[in-house]
Amino acid sequence: MLKSAELGLKVSKDAYDRQLPKLRLDLLQAHWEIHQSKVPVVVVISGPEISGKGELINRLAAWVDPRGLEVNAFGPASDEERERPPWWRFWRALPPRGKVGIFLGSWYTVPILRRVDGKMGKSAFQRELDRIAFFERMLAEDGALIVKFWLHLSKREQKKFLKRHERDPRTRWRVTPIDWKAFRLYDRFAKWSETALLRTDAPHAPWVVVDAADEHHRDLAVGRYLLAALRRGAEAVKEKSGAAKIARRAASVPSAGRIVPGAEGNVLDAVDLKQKVSDEAYRKRLATLQGRVGTLTRRAYEKRVSSVLVFEGWDAGGKGGSIRRLTEAVDPRLYRVVPIAAPTEEERAQHYLWRFWRHLPRDGRVTIFDRSWYGRVLVERVEGFAKPEEWERAYLEINDFEEQLAEHGTVVVKYWLHISPEEQLRRFRERQRVGFKKHKITDEDWRNRNKSEAYFAAVSDMVARTDTPSARWTLVAANDKKVARLQILETFVRNLSAAL
Amino acid sequence: MLKSAELGLKVSKDAYDRQLPKLRLDLLQAHWEIHQSKVPVVVVISGPEISGKGELINRLAAWVDPRGLEVNAFGPASDEERERPPWWRFWRALPPRGKVGIFLGSWYTVPILRRVDGKMGKSAFQRELDRIAFFERMLAEDGALIVKFWLHLSKREQKKFLKRHERDPRTRWRVTPIDWKAFRLYDRFAKWSETALLRTDAPHAPWVVVDAADEHHRDLAVGRYLLAALRRGAEAVKEKSGAAKIARRAASVPSAGRIVPGAEGNVLDAVDLKQKVSDEAYRKRLATLQGRVGTLTRRAYEKRVSSVLVFEGWDAGGKGGSIRRLTEAVDPRLYRVVPIAAPTEEERAQHYLWRFWRHLPRDGRVTIFDRSWYGRVLVERVEGFAKPEEWERAYLEINDFEEQLAEHGTVVVKYWLHISPEEQLRRFRERQRVGFKKHKITDEDWRNRNKSEAYFAAVSDMVARTDTPSARWTLVAANDKKVARLQILETFVRNLSAAL
Repeated sequence: MLKSAELGLKVSKDAYDRQLPKLRLDLLQAHWEIHQSKVPVVVVISGPEISGKGELINRLAAWVDPRGLEVNAFGPASDEERERPPWWRFWRALPPRGKVGIFLGSWYTVPILRRVDGKMGKSAFQRELDRIAFFERMLAEDGALIVKFWLHLSKREQKKFLKRHERDPRTRWRVTPIDWKAFRLYDRFAKWSETALLRTDAPHAPWVVVDAADEHHRDLAVGRYLLAALRRGAEAVKEKSGAAKIARRAASVPSAGRIVPGAEGNVLDAVDLKQKVSDEAYRKRLATLQGRVGTLTRRAYEKRVSSVLVFEGWDAGGKGGSIRRLTEAVDPRLYRVVPIAAPTEEERAQHYLWRFWRHLPRDGRVTIFDRSWYGRVLVERVEGFAKPEEWERAYLEINDFEEQLAEHGTVVVKYWLHISPEEQLRRFRERQRVGFKKHKITDEDWRNRNKSEAYFAAVSDMVARTDTPSARWTLVAANDKKVARLQILETFVRNLSAAL
Repeated sequence: MLKSAELGLKVSKDAYDRQLPKLRLDLLQAHWEIHQSKVPVVVVISGPEISGKGELINRLAAWVDPRGLEVNAFGPASDEERERPPWWRFWRALPPRGKVGIFLGSWYTVPILRRVDGKMGKSAFQRELDRIAFFERMLAEDGALIVKFWLHLSKREQKKFLKRHERDPRTRWRVTPIDWKAFRLYDRFAKWSETALLRTDAPHAPWVVVDAADEHHRDLAVGRYLLAALRRGAEAVKEKSGAAKIARRAASVPSAGRIVPGAEGNVLDAVDLKQKVSDEAYRKRLATLQGRVGTLTRRAYEKRVSSVLVFEGWDAGGKGGSIRRLTEAVDPRLYRVVPIAAPTEEERAQHYLWRFWRHLPRDGRVTIFDRSWYGRVLVERVEGFAKPEEWERAYLEINDFEEQLAEHGTVVVKYWLHISPEEQLRRFRERQRVGFKKHKITDEDWRNRNKSEAYFAAVSDMVARTDTPSARWTLVAANDKKVARLQILETFVRNLSAAL
């Protein structure tokens, strides 16, 4: 969820200055409308210390009518606060209907920090996250609109930030030893923050992860998202959608990386499709990797560690060939390939996850899913086979499912085979030309191609919302099939050997 | 939740035989309709080992069409099951749309047993319950109808059962040393079962606690509740209410103790209203108790333990007088009485719990709520000020709220002042007669009296669903004001001294 926000999005000073006046005007208007609609708005601004949360909030406060806004910052608990249950301070600060309450630091801060420094155990942490989810759901069901921004800085960007400020005599004071100490805990902090975000990223209270390396992008992205959410919230009230639907409607603003025009970006853009490998290097490396896969799957069988591999990707992305290179290396008694097409009648009579549960491998075995449960948030979303509320809640359902696999000790590896539209076209045409490939191209493939915009958004959201510590996505550069196959084998070898 | 089901409900063999044929016919019909509606039905049957779960299920199975029914029993995990994540066995057993799946033992069994024998910590247990809640919500959102029965036996009944079966040579084999061992763990088992039930008692997946001491009552109660749930579920489908609403509609069957005609009962019936106390005994005992209250609240101040007291009860139940007897004994700097009337404008602009959060005492103080958050599930429910989905979800919200108080170390004591309708009438008339009491009686009081049936149901549900290990209800026998006041003071003294 965090990594996928590291898109290096930037907005030039010029573009910022051009976009700002209209955004401010629109925000004022939307703020006024939501005020009239009597919707309480909870805005959480979180992220690491040096991500510029304070700066951002000052700007937001300047952009809207201060009479409809309350900024709440939470430092160490006061006497008054310590002498009541921990949530008392947050209840006290909730905005009344019609107002916007901005929370700098929030119910997320203490659990994450206590988990990072080890003072809170894993179960207690998860329990606390479940309580947070319950709280936010309760507010949403009561008609509140909830938006949560996480200002993300990559490790590299965070280091750059600290160094830059240390060098400049005017900002040196801002960098304290505590900041450096926090930086050394970066990985732990990122891991537990991400866990918190994933478990509380709900259709009625979404997390919007903003790449905060560039402050112009950061501010515009938050402002624009907030604007869209306020507008949709006010619309929902006008249509008398019912309290519980306001939050869900407001949250239906697409986020992943596409908030600011001129700073468009997508997690797939970061995949370097130009990589090549020579035939000879490929053959040698393939042999080595296949040998490793053979040895490791044998050892996994002895140690009773199972693996679940998920292959997703664009049509003609090369899934079949890649799977074959992998299975060639494994003892046939140890693996199974499960191709996922339209569900059977028996499967349609069950919850959509049922047909994947039934195919889980026994300990020590490998199951390879050729397409998977991600169909729910890809083809079913784009083609309208699943209703918005269905695919929206699927992210949490999928994360819970994969977490159960990980808790059982199963190695979960997920591949997205990415190719450029040009390469896809080339492969489609080749399939039509070459006799024995003809059956592989259908009208549907061409239709899907025309929906590539919608599929791009679906893939972005999918990677952003299901790239979890227990089950990471591997974005495979698949324009060159040989490069793709090596990357796939390497990833499996790395993950499986780490688990043994 | 469990205690309040101990109503000693019995159905005679005659009444059973009279009611059964129609019930079986209706169940067959309802089962057929739900089959046609393509709704999957999940029926969980839980409770202690000797509560007759097996017997009950055999009967249910005989009553409905076996082609539409699947009974799933879960013993120790098989090899196949152990080698997959723990939930695999349950997913495998889920009924397809249109079928009823009965679960004897279920996802509840292992967490409760592991918690009872101490193998699972408190946080891990709660985390597991949250996962269960997530799972059931997921099924309900997908259109499943979920009903969960807990067959309850009081400690006394359980002992009687074991002894009776041991005496009879025909049933002696049924009682094993394991049953007696389980009996010795009764209190722990009851505590953690109740915790599990409370946290997973949702509007879309309700728990129905059935007094299982009498097998005729047990079987009819389950059969009748199931019938009503199936009927409402089928209705919801006919009205095209949407998947998520089917479960909620089916769950809107009132349960607490009033399922079987002829076995009507109510938790309030168990309150002995005939108790009397002489004036002299009252004066002496009152003085002692008030002294204890004075000392204990002083000590609680020093030890920084806060208390929250909730006074609810019938109109003219004697709340005011009781509160005065209590506050007389406490240093005025240490307590506050918060009378709850209609919410202010400021309060209406917030979530309904907000106005109670704001009045929580600091450590060491006592806050007395004269009426409380329970208005949500009493007057607001009966008068229609809150929509069904609002007051239905309030039980979980209230339990979470009170659990946070308990976790903070606050002593929570809740009183329901119960008087008979006749005594209420007498007091109303007295109030009209006696000048200085006249202001205490309004037209509204008379109106409420006419809705006593609906209020009775609301009070039953409230006690059943919010009598939690962290915040128990005390049902006060208030026909005699002196008896009531002593009981109130005694309960507070007992709870507070236990916490110090």
